[in-house]
Amino acid sequence: MQMAMRRLVGVLGGMGPLATVDFMQKVIAATPATCDQDHVPLIVYSVPQIPDRVSAIVAGTDEPFQAILQGLRCLEQAGARLIAMPCNTAHAWYDRLAASTSVEMLHMADAVRQRVGGRQETIGLMATYGTVRAGFYQRYLTSVERTVLLPTADVQAVIGKAIAAVKVNDMSHARQHMVAAAEALLHAGADRLLLACTELPLAAASTAIQDRCLDATVCLAEACVAFSTRVQPHLSEEPDVWTSVGSRIS
Amino acid sequence: MQMAMRRLVGVLGGMGPLATVDFMQKVIAATPATCDQDHVPLIVYSVPQIPDRVSAIVAGTDEPFQAILQGLRCLEQAGARLIAMPCNTAHAWYDRLAASTSVEMLHMADAVRQRVGGRQETIGLMATYGTVRAGFYQRYLTSVERTVLLPTADVQAVIGKAIAAVKVNDMSHARQHMVAAAEALLHAGADRLLLACTELPLAAASTAIQDRCLDATVCLAEACVAFSTRVQPHLSEEPDVWTSVGSRIS
Repeated sequence: MQMAMRRLVGVLGGMGPLATVDFMQKVIAATPATCDQDHVPLIVYSVPQIPDRVSAIVAGTDEPFQAILQGLRCLEQAGARLIAMPCNTAHAWYDRLAASTSVEMLHMADAVRQRVGGRQETIGLMATYGTVRAGFYQRYLTSVERTVLLPTADVQAVIGKAIAAVKVNDMSHARQHMVAAAEALLHAGADRLLLACTELPLAAASTAIQDRCLDATVCLAEACVAFSTRVQPHLSEEPDVWTSVGSRIS
Repeated sequence: MQMAMRRLVGVLGGMGPLATVDFMQKVIAATPATCDQDHVPLIVYSVPQIPDRVSAIVAGTDEPFQAILQGLRCLEQAGARLIAMPCNTAHAWYDRLAASTSVEMLHMADAVRQRVGGRQETIGLMATYGTVRAGFYQRYLTSVERTVLLPTADVQAVIGKAIAAVKVNDMSHARQHMVAAAEALLHAGADRLLLACTELPLAAASTAIQDRCLDATVCLAEACVAFSTRVQPHLSEEPDVWTSVGSRIS
């Protein structure tokens, strides 16, 4: 009888679609598995038509909220036991989304906070302008006594170029902008760089600065795997879509 | 006003999880896009606890059917307008699945049939033993007058090893077995090799035989993109989850 206990994780994605795929790969990579059945069950809402998050934050409008909420409702209905949203910028709406559902919702910055070790360090924040302005990484990380170093306006513009290049799959320019911005932050005193935009790990891959980076997508993926695979003695007592899938495996 | 018309595609996946991710990447790669919003909206059911398909076919049991049907119901409820199943072997249950839903369901072998050109050729079938035994590729391809070359038992065993190696992420052995089996089929008279197991393109990537291969996953991805992005003059008359997402973009 196969009885791998796994809880269904809902992925509120499509922001952008490649970042969602990257997140799924990181969930797979973070899972101890010897066969398909060991892996984390996912229900993935990847609808890239959700309006642009950064421009909404900059314009002070609320356009993406309803579209993201629709995705959340879809994942609830599918029986997700935890919701993860592999888009840092969209966390500007996290509080309202979490308040509108009874399903547990992971916050990416909380996953990062749990991951950073005990040592004193200065973390350089590499994110969209929208994420920097929303301020949640500053709040979560300073709560565990990390110093957060924000990019200057010039460096922020270069980070924006790296992200835009990934979105059009121009990896050569993406890497070039990524390294330039990273070096500026390291020079300004950052001990580590937090890649807090789902596009940035793709730009940092196979570059010289990769070892200095902490990937928020990996932190979120690891938190999802921990949730899904944790031994849950009371699981059989709970109504759970996943339990009903599991019962067919026996 | 952004009004990219896109229909929601449901992905019946998790068989295995890496193959689902590979399929999603191929959908993205096959989509002409300049921004997130151009991409195909996907709802992805990636529940790898679906019982093993090959062993069920070999044992003559029906174990995976109910688990796959549960995934299909989930995608229906989420509003998918088309269902694609990026697992060749699971197509042994295609007829019953398609008969139990009113949503259009793509058949991978049909997507391949539409893709192969007009020339006479012999296609070497590289698939799981379950897929070969189920016989649907033979039926679909011979219907368009392709000669299908099946592997000998020895070569089939090597193909099985390549697939198993991908599933445990042992890419070095996967490539080695893949090339050995491919060369045997080419030597036996195949003009092209059909990679009709979602794990095999990962084993064929960056090998010398890659150019001789036709990837069934790519054929399925292209058919999904064509369906989702096709201009649909009557779309606004239909009740459609995707239309309601779209209306929020304007």
